[in-house]
Amino acid sequence: MRILIVGGVAAGPKVGAKINRLNSTAEVTLVEKGEFLSYAGCGLPYYVAGEVKEQKELMCTPVGVVRDPVFFQNVKNMKVLNRTEALRIDRQAKMLLVKDLHTGEEKTLPYDKLVLATGSSPIKPPLPGIDLSNVFSVHKIEDAEAIRKVIAENKAKDVVIVGGGLIGLEMTEALARHGARITIVEKLSEILPMMDTDLVVHVMKYLESKGVKVRCSTAVISFEGNGKVEKVRTDKGEIPCDMVIVAVGVKPNAGLAKEAGLEVGKTGGIKVDASMQTSDPDIYAAGDCTEGSNLITGEPCFIPLGSTANKEGRVAAVNICGGKDVFNGVLGTAVVKIFDYTVARTGLGEEQARKAGFDVITVLSPAPDKAHYYPGAKMIMMKVVADRKSRRLLGLQVVGPGEGDKRVDVAATAITAKMTVDDVAHLDLAYAPPYSSAMDNIITACDIARNKMDGIFEGVSPAEVKAMIDRKDDVVLLDVRSPAEVQAMPFPGAINIPLGALRKRWTELPKDKEIVAFCKISLRGYEAAMILKGQGFNKVKVMDGGLVMWSF
Amino acid sequence: MRILIVGGVAAGPKVGAKINRLNSTAEVTLVEKGEFLSYAGCGLPYYVAGEVKEQKELMCTPVGVVRDPVFFQNVKNMKVLNRTEALRIDRQAKMLLVKDLHTGEEKTLPYDKLVLATGSSPIKPPLPGIDLSNVFSVHKIEDAEAIRKVIAENKAKDVVIVGGGLIGLEMTEALARHGARITIVEKLSEILPMMDTDLVVHVMKYLESKGVKVRCSTAVISFEGNGKVEKVRTDKGEIPCDMVIVAVGVKPNAGLAKEAGLEVGKTGGIKVDASMQTSDPDIYAAGDCTEGSNLITGEPCFIPLGSTANKEGRVAAVNICGGKDVFNGVLGTAVVKIFDYTVARTGLGEEQARKAGFDVITVLSPAPDKAHYYPGAKMIMMKVVADRKSRRLLGLQVVGPGEGDKRVDVAATAITAKMTVDDVAHLDLAYAPPYSSAMDNIITACDIARNKMDGIFEGVSPAEVKAMIDRKDDVVLLDVRSPAEVQAMPFPGAINIPLGALRKRWTELPKDKEIVAFCKISLRGYEAAMILKGQGFNKVKVMDGGLVMWSF
Repeated sequence: MRILIVGGVAAGPKVGAKINRLNSTAEVTLVEKGEFLSYAGCGLPYYVAGEVKEQKELMCTPVGVVRDPVFFQNVKNMKVLNRTEALRIDRQAKMLLVKDLHTGEEKTLPYDKLVLATGSSPIKPPLPGIDLSNVFSVHKIEDAEAIRKVIAENKAKDVVIVGGGLIGLEMTEALARHGARITIVEKLSEILPMMDTDLVVHVMKYLESKGVKVRCSTAVISFEGNGKVEKVRTDKGEIPCDMVIVAVGVKPNAGLAKEAGLEVGKTGGIKVDASMQTSDPDIYAAGDCTEGSNLITGEPCFIPLGSTANKEGRVAAVNICGGKDVFNGVLGTAVVKIFDYTVARTGLGEEQARKAGFDVITVLSPAPDKAHYYPGAKMIMMKVVADRKSRRLLGLQVVGPGEGDKRVDVAATAITAKMTVDDVAHLDLAYAPPYSSAMDNIITACDIARNKMDGIFEGVSPAEVKAMIDRKDDVVLLDVRSPAEVQAMPFPGAINIPLGALRKRWTELPKDKEIVAFCKISLRGYEAAMILKGQGFNKVKVMDGGLVMWSF
Repeated sequence: MRILIVGGVAAGPKVGAKINRLNSTAEVTLVEKGEFLSYAGCGLPYYVAGEVKEQKELMCTPVGVVRDPVFFQNVKNMKVLNRTEALRIDRQAKMLLVKDLHTGEEKTLPYDKLVLATGSSPIKPPLPGIDLSNVFSVHKIEDAEAIRKVIAENKAKDVVIVGGGLIGLEMTEALARHGARITIVEKLSEILPMMDTDLVVHVMKYLESKGVKVRCSTAVISFEGNGKVEKVRTDKGEIPCDMVIVAVGVKPNAGLAKEAGLEVGKTGGIKVDASMQTSDPDIYAAGDCTEGSNLITGEPCFIPLGSTANKEGRVAAVNICGGKDVFNGVLGTAVVKIFDYTVARTGLGEEQARKAGFDVITVLSPAPDKAHYYPGAKMIMMKVVADRKSRRLLGLQVVGPGEGDKRVDVAATAITAKMTVDDVAHLDLAYAPPYSSAMDNIITACDIARNKMDGIFEGVSPAEVKAMIDRKDDVVLLDVRSPAEVQAMPFPGAINIPLGALRKRWTELPKDKEIVAFCKISLRGYEAAMILKGQGFNKVKVMDGGLVMWSF
């Protein structure tokens, strides 16, 4: 059996290695356009940051063996042709036309099964000046080397990052470590489109606190300079700079597939079924070049990630070797470290869930990631999205210095299993003070969702409260914090009745007006609402997440 | 509705608070024998360690309000009688006889629903000298204060910890922080009975590296000294010391229930159904005093934890107030921080799974918790227990400096959802280099389990390999590491053929003999086995987890 693989970064080598372990007589050939193989593309920002010291660390196995063609031949029994470009698939003849980029020579390679693992490419907006020097994207080892060279020459003092997505933010931290002054320019109204606004505002505040300027709703018109970039012209003015990182997303490399007449989805990725087979039964595809599927909605999606590429590669290999394995889709799980913050999400965001037809309930719940008295406990601001009807957990998002990734992984598992918020609230998660509170953050957040579903109380988001204030609505803002807390962080316009006094002082409040109760995190706000409800108040709401979630 | 709650530490206050939120007209009275209420018992070792600085931190809400009777009255609308002992339940009359420990006065309190949240007590072995001073258990605030006093007087130089369970190990770290020389004495053949031997050996090695002496299979005969403890006499000799911590487990406080004729399980805990109702429909119980149920096997168990107490308390409160909620059981999830190691587990251990009738497959998989090139990536030694027939994940255990708690929480969720190892291997977990490898530890471990289930390779545990060597079995130990690795850490008696050379040098190996292949973590060992299998070898096994898991 002759297996031909196009692409040597993530999914391709995985497919080849797995095929060789399953079938020692398979003849596996891998074609890669670039010089480097099986490198950790996701590690590039950390290499630029200087946290990863040497290029080869990104290309080595954990025991320090460089993954070059000799390694692949000897260890993985794969013939690797690097610097070799795949030009055309002849599906009739089952041949691939390739070009040796060393010699310029073209030749055809036969296959029984072809695997496309052609990856993705950074989107290069057709803007004037995009080819100036010191305008970079971050996709290949060579990109990182070029950026490092500019840093080493101390010529990356003012950097504009175009695009506030994952790579833009990873590069923000990487370059800030070298002392660069950074401005993020984002065309959309906010950065991090994977996250809901309630949480993005806290990321924005944090970035500003780190000296990073964030310019949203700002479109780049051109890059300008004399050979080397000197400024970015936007629709909101010019930004002088000596380096630009363009990180406005990636697109699947589906050209080879498209030209061969394989089906390509509306996201631009190659269509595959759950066995990773394309519309041609002799051609499989895996990794960034494919179109994925959302596990909850079944909607096609394009979410390129090294983790998914590895899983898909294994599934393709098993099926090619006559086994049976399926990959049903993804949840859009993502995580990014931004300075000391962890920003992560899985499942559906609030709007996504609404569009998919769910009866959406949301929760904002800020809480420390460990027992609150344990030194080093750090805040996680959490948002839960759930469906009132089925009570299913649909999504989780986290922002903050605490270990939010753990809770997102639990949520990803629970969502995959179609668990309800009730199921999650009863999970037997690992508890000891250095690891969580007795009630883990996700359990507390799901209990709040249950209370809302059961009609026990009604929440109102900080953004809605802000709108009420701006509109001068006739609403009573009831702050039930202690006087000391109020003094330390006043909330103008609110009536302060500490929770402990409310059972005596509720008579000071009007029953006919809308009341919004809150405290620091709105646990006491919730108790206040319950006390008032018990006294016959029926227009009391609780501000979701309390003042910790307030960003205005 | 008059609700009477006995016990004011974890489950009791939770029940009362939740009832008040659900039903503002309920009259809730809580009776607590001790002085202190709602304190964080799990935090005591960290208070002894000095990490938690002040006693009141363990008794405060996150915003610093002490949870005393006034707090409970004003905020939670509960009447709290502390230093009040519950003496007898009159189920007929629905009355509780209590004794005021301040005045010695006895009185009866009526109830419509009674909630037993009487907690657990440390087991006090009836050994001579157990009442000497400086022999402590760690259960109450007063215990921690007494221990701190001895430390402050600089009189805790040599400490014997009796019992190598969770509290014993937490106290080991706590006292080592004060410079104490520590000996753990454990009656059983190993410490940490919640963990399998393959992993416990690594905890033992680590403790020894920290200067902690561990004496297993050692029974205490007596504590000796003149007023104050001076030595511990064991069946293996004497250990001089100036302090003893007895941490040999806790037992449920079920006396009150038992005397009232309520059903008590074989574990000694009060029997409750999934609604937390006891055998008397007007009496509920929650927390450490109850008998739990294993979610996988349905077997009764006694696993007292603050996390479970809170969940059970909420369920009891909802049902008492006419709602409907169920608590189906626990997985025995547990985590403990020991110096810089995280030791955690969930689900069934290997023997437990076998006894429950599963066709057990195990995996030992050591891997870094982050991308291996990311600075600060730390090792997690992981053991997976799964069922060959149903392919269900049954258990996960972790030991090491890496973030094992995250993977255990994912496993707890997956096991609760009855996921197969195939399901887990396809989970869309949060990936970025600071958080995990592209293939997260639990995904890799589950893929190995799948390979074993599918008969792709056969594993053999390091302990079995050690036994083969000791028995002088006619077996070839094939070390496929690089020469540099072998030089750095030789494995005597093994043949070294680096993996990259094996496709040429396999002829050096005998086909008729049993071969055990390995490397550092046995990924290359596995590939070696596949290469040899391809050459017609059919007696090749792979040493599970490689040399990282070797402890001999």
